[in-house]
Amino acid sequence: MTGSGTTLDDYTDRYAQRVHGMTASEIRALFAVASRPEVVSLAGGAPYVTALPLDAVGEMLSRLAIDHGATSLQYGIGQGTLELRERICDVMALSGIDGALGASPEDVVVTVGGQQALDLVARLFLDPGDVVIAEGPTYVGALGAFQAAQANVVHVAMDDDGLIPEALEVAIADVAASGRRAKFLYTIPTYQNPAGVTLSEPRRDRVIDICERAGLLVIEDDPYGQLGFEGDPPAPLRARRRDGVFYLSTFSKTFAPGFRVGWILAPHAVREKLVIASEAQILCPSAFAQAAVTEYLTNMPWREQLKSYREIYRERRDTLLSSLAAQMPEGTSWTRPGGGLFVWATLPEPLDAKAMVPRALGARVAYVPGTGFYADGSGRSNLRLNFSFCAPERIREGIRRLAGVVEQELSLRSVFGALPAPPATSDAPASLLDIAEAGAPQDGV
Amino acid sequence: MTGSGTTLDDYTDRYAQRVHGMTASEIRALFAVASRPEVVSLAGGAPYVTALPLDAVGEMLSRLAIDHGATSLQYGIGQGTLELRERICDVMALSGIDGALGASPEDVVVTVGGQQALDLVARLFLDPGDVVIAEGPTYVGALGAFQAAQANVVHVAMDDDGLIPEALEVAIADVAASGRRAKFLYTIPTYQNPAGVTLSEPRRDRVIDICERAGLLVIEDDPYGQLGFEGDPPAPLRARRRDGVFYLSTFSKTFAPGFRVGWILAPHAVREKLVIASEAQILCPSAFAQAAVTEYLTNMPWREQLKSYREIYRERRDTLLSSLAAQMPEGTSWTRPGGGLFVWATLPEPLDAKAMVPRALGARVAYVPGTGFYADGSGRSNLRLNFSFCAPERIREGIRRLAGVVEQELSLRSVFGALPAPPATSDAPASLLDIAEAGAPQDGV
Repeated sequence: MTGSGTTLDDYTDRYAQRVHGMTASEIRALFAVASRPEVVSLAGGAPYVTALPLDAVGEMLSRLAIDHGATSLQYGIGQGTLELRERICDVMALSGIDGALGASPEDVVVTVGGQQALDLVARLFLDPGDVVIAEGPTYVGALGAFQAAQANVVHVAMDDDGLIPEALEVAIADVAASGRRAKFLYTIPTYQNPAGVTLSEPRRDRVIDICERAGLLVIEDDPYGQLGFEGDPPAPLRARRRDGVFYLSTFSKTFAPGFRVGWILAPHAVREKLVIASEAQILCPSAFAQAAVTEYLTNMPWREQLKSYREIYRERRDTLLSSLAAQMPEGTSWTRPGGGLFVWATLPEPLDAKAMVPRALGARVAYVPGTGFYADGSGRSNLRLNFSFCAPERIREGIRRLAGVVEQELSLRSVFGALPAPPATSDAPASLLDIAEAGAPQDGV
Repeated sequence: MTGSGTTLDDYTDRYAQRVHGMTASEIRALFAVASRPEVVSLAGGAPYVTALPLDAVGEMLSRLAIDHGATSLQYGIGQGTLELRERICDVMALSGIDGALGASPEDVVVTVGGQQALDLVARLFLDPGDVVIAEGPTYVGALGAFQAAQANVVHVAMDDDGLIPEALEVAIADVAASGRRAKFLYTIPTYQNPAGVTLSEPRRDRVIDICERAGLLVIEDDPYGQLGFEGDPPAPLRARRRDGVFYLSTFSKTFAPGFRVGWILAPHAVREKLVIASEAQILCPSAFAQAAVTEYLTNMPWREQLKSYREIYRERRDTLLSSLAAQMPEGTSWTRPGGGLFVWATLPEPLDAKAMVPRALGARVAYVPGTGFYADGSGRSNLRLNFSFCAPERIREGIRRLAGVVEQELSLRSVFGALPAPPATSDAPASLLDIAEAGAPQDGV
C-alpha cells in the first residue's frame, strides 16, 4: 500500500512558462497583519456588509434552499441564469446602458466576481508579450490577471479628471513604435481604484475615439459607478459606444462580495468565446449565489440599500479627508473622490511609502503602498487609503497614527538621511508571510 | 454622448492564440434539449439534490447570514478558509489520506468546484504543445481545461479493472519518441467518468510507479470515491504516495453542486503557486459557499446523507443495468460500475451513437455520445448513461425508448446501409444551439 518513498520535490522544471512570472502580491501578506484587531486598517477594499439587513438576507437565503433547492443547489449553465442576466440588464439600464445600445441578456456572461471577468478577457485577447494599456496606478487584481497571461502593462498617467487623453495617445504611439501589439485599454473610469478620480465628461468620448482610431478595444471596469456621493457620475463608456467596449462589473460593492458574482457585457461576436473559456475554468457559476443575487435584486429594497451604502461611505470619506487635512504634515497631498472606496495620497519627498509599511504597522495603522498598483515599480511615494470599512472614529484614529509615522519619518530623514529600504516584493518580510499563510482573513483589494 | 458609429465587429484577428482551438462542447447544446420535461435524460451528471434535507439546509444557510454575515458575506483569502481546509482534511482522512501522508490544511487550496482545480493544474504545468496522458474516455471538463492550455491529450485504454498499465507504458514511450513532453497523467481511478470502471487494487501502485519512473506527475481526480455501492473502493493513489500525486475532489457529488466548492491537495512546494494562480482567476472563493460547506460538514449529519445518496444511486444503477439487460438488442455491451454516476455502453457495429442522438431525442430519450469524452474523435459507438438523476421508473422508460431507437437503427441499417451522418461538432445543429442559448438549465457533466 505504501509507495517507494522516492521524492519528487522539485517541481520547478515542470512549470509552464507562465508560472515563472507569477509572484505573490505584496498586498496579500499585508492584509493578514492589517486584519489584527489592534490595527486600524485602511488597507483593504472591503464593503461594510454589516450595513445589510442581515435578518432579511438570511430569511431570503433559507427560502432559496427550501423552496427552490432543486435548482439553487444544482448545476447551471456556463453563461449564468437568464433570470440573473435580465436583472443585470436592469441594473445597467440605470446608468444608460440599455437595449437601444444593444445591451441584452444574450450578451451578458455571469462571472465569479469582477476578477474572473478580468481573467476571461485576458485569456481571450492576450498572447505572451502583448501589451495592455492601463491607468497608472490601476487595480492590483487586473495586474495579476494580465501578468498570468504573460502580457506587459504600459501605464498612462491620470490627473484630477482621470486618464489624460494626450498621455494615452503618446503611450499608444510608443507601443506601436516599439513593434509590440497593444490589444486593449483597461480602464476604471469612475471612482478609480486606487486613485479615487473620475474620468471627466469631456474626456470620455475622446478616450473612446482615440482607442477606436488605434484599433484598441476598451475594457471598462465599473465596480463603483453606483457609489457616487455627489450625484450621478458621467455615463459609462459603454453607454456611449456599443462596439469595441466591454463592460465589466460586480455585485461585490453594491450587495456583498461573499457570493462572488460579477459580469461582462460583451460584444455579441465575442460572448460565445467567453462562455467557452469560462466553462473551461469553472464549468458554471454558483447557482445558489446567482439565485441569491437575483432574489436580492427582485424582492429586496436594493436601491435603498445602495443609498445607505452611499451615505455611510460619504460620511467616512469626509472624515478621512478632514482628518488628512487636520493631521498630515505639509507636503502631503491626496485625491478627493466623488464616490467609491479609496483616496490616493502622496507623501512629501523623499519619503518611501513602501519602506514605511513596517513602521506604520508598528504604530498600528495599515495602508497599501502605491507600488502594488503599478507593473513598473512606480508609486513609491504613494499610498492607498480605504474609507469604506472602518467607522469614522477609527478612521480619525488611523490618520492620527499615520500622521505620526510620517512626521517621525520626516524628522528621522532630516537627521539621518535615507533609512534602509525593506527587502523587495518577492521576498517580503518573513513575519508578514508567515502570518498570511496561517490563513488570517483579508479584506478584498 | 453618442459615438461615431464606426463598427469594430470583427474580433477574430485580436484573439489570443489559445482561443482558436476553443470550441463549444457538443454536450452543452445537448443538455438544453435533454432538460425538456418530456425527455428522459440520462445525459447529465447531476446529483439528486432533492434528497437533501432542504428545510435543515435552508435553516443552516439563514444562520450563516444572520449570525456570521460580517464574514460569510465578505471577501476571504485566496487559499480558502482554514476552517474549511481542516474539514477537507477530515474528509480525506476517511479514505486514508491523512497527516501521516503529509495531508495538511496548509497544502489544501479551495477551488470553484472540481473544474477550477483542473484548470489551475493545467495553468501551472501546461505549455502549448505539452502532452497530458489521460484515460480514454475521460471527463469532458478536463479535456476543456487542457485544450484551453493548448495541450494535447494522449488517451490510454481501460478495461474492467481501469487504466491498463501496459498501455500507459506504451503511451509514455510513444510520446517520448515523438519528441514531445508529457507533463502528467490525469486519472479518475475510482468510478470513472464516463466509463464507470475502477482501477483495481493491484494496478494502483503500478500506475504510480510507472509515472514516477517516467518523471510524470499524477493528477488524481476523485469526485466519486465516497459513492461506492459495494463497500469501500481501493484507497486513492494519494493515500499510497505523498510525492508527485495531486489529489482533486469536490463537494458537488457528496453535498451539492450549487455552491461550487472543490479542492486540490498539492505538494507543499506547489501550493503557493496554485494560490497565486487562483487569485489571478477569481481573487478568492466564495466565503458564503465555504461557510455553507463548513457548516454542513460540522453540524449536519453528512455521512448519513452520503449513505442515503449511495442507497438511492445503487437502486438506480441496478434499475439501469437490469433494464439494459432486458431491453437492449444483442451486441450491445456496457460496464457495471461499483459506484459513481455513470454506465458506459457500446452499441453493436456499425451503429454510430453520435449520429443517433437526434433520433433518440425524437424518441424522447437523451444520452451523451462517446465522442465527447475523447480528444481524438474516438467513441463513436459509445454512449454514457447517467443513473443518479432520474427515478427508477424514468430510467426503465428511458432504456425502453433507447432500445427502441437502437433496434430501429439496426433494422434501417440492414435495409438501407449507413444513414447520413450529422454535421461535425463545431457546427452542431442550429436547433440545438438555439435552444442552448435561450438559457435552459443543464445538468452538470
